[in-house]
Amino acid sequence: MERVPVLKIGDILLVSIQVDMEDQTALQLQEDLAERIVATGCHGVIIDITALDIVDSFVGRMLSTIASISKVLDAETVVVGMRPAVAITLVELGLSLNGIRTALNVERGMELIAAARDDDEEPDDDLDAGESERVAASP
Amino acid sequence: MERVPVLKIGDILLVSIQVDMEDQTALQLQEDLAERIVATGCHGVIIDITALDIVDSFVGRMLSTIASISKVLDAETVVVGMRPAVAITLVELGLSLNGIRTALNVERGMELIAAARDDDEEPDDDLDAGESERVAASP
Repeated sequence: MERVPVLKIGDILLVSIQVDMEDQTALQLQEDLAERIVATGCHGVIIDITALDIVDSFVGRMLSTIASISKVLDAETVVVGMRPAVAITLVELGLSLNGIRTALNVERGMELIAAARDDDEEPDDDLDAGESERVAASP
Repeated sequence: MERVPVLKIGDILLVSIQVDMEDQTALQLQEDLAERIVATGCHGVIIDITALDIVDSFVGRMLSTIASISKVLDAETVVVGMRPAVAITLVELGLSLNGIRTALNVERGMELIAAARDDDEEPDDDLDAGESERVAASP
């Protein structure tokens, strides 16, 4: 069974899918990714599909599942490197990648994740500010 | 024919080898990498071989060739993610990866490339300083 490597780069886990995804490979990848997110505390997952000639419903579902698992583990998932032909086929097949963010390449994916983290953190800051105001006003 | 994707991350091109390298795939990869180095002006190439169960003389030669080509194009090559078993087999087979730097993982590979760039740049600075002194002393 082939195993897709998960590479850690800073706060991001990078997965480049190059082999045909079979049931077992997909399950293994989901498991590996979930374990690495927990072990490393990374907040972003980038899945590169440059090498894929086609994204069928199985791969689409796998990407959605990975995005959902990562979300629960507090990590954003971005799919990058989709070829134009793959995008066209996806739409023609009526498949929509639900809940999956996409970016043109790895660098833009990293920017997207960084931006999403900033957005997430801002409301926390406001909340903290609100709390400290409340604390200050309480006596 | 399968094609190994080349991902650009900052000043580095990342290649994750997951498929069996055949003649044509290896040649294509060398060509793609050389073109991307020239097009992007990147100064580092990281080749991840986490997924490889064995590095035979063919793959070893391919890695050496890529390192040599990159060197000529002013880019450092670092091979990362070698499994312990692969290292043992390499030594047992009497293969030495000539001219190839290795690092444990992508992040350390990036550090190695950054350090190598710094070392390269220092003599230039000295040279510049020497030249400006000479210019200053000339009249």
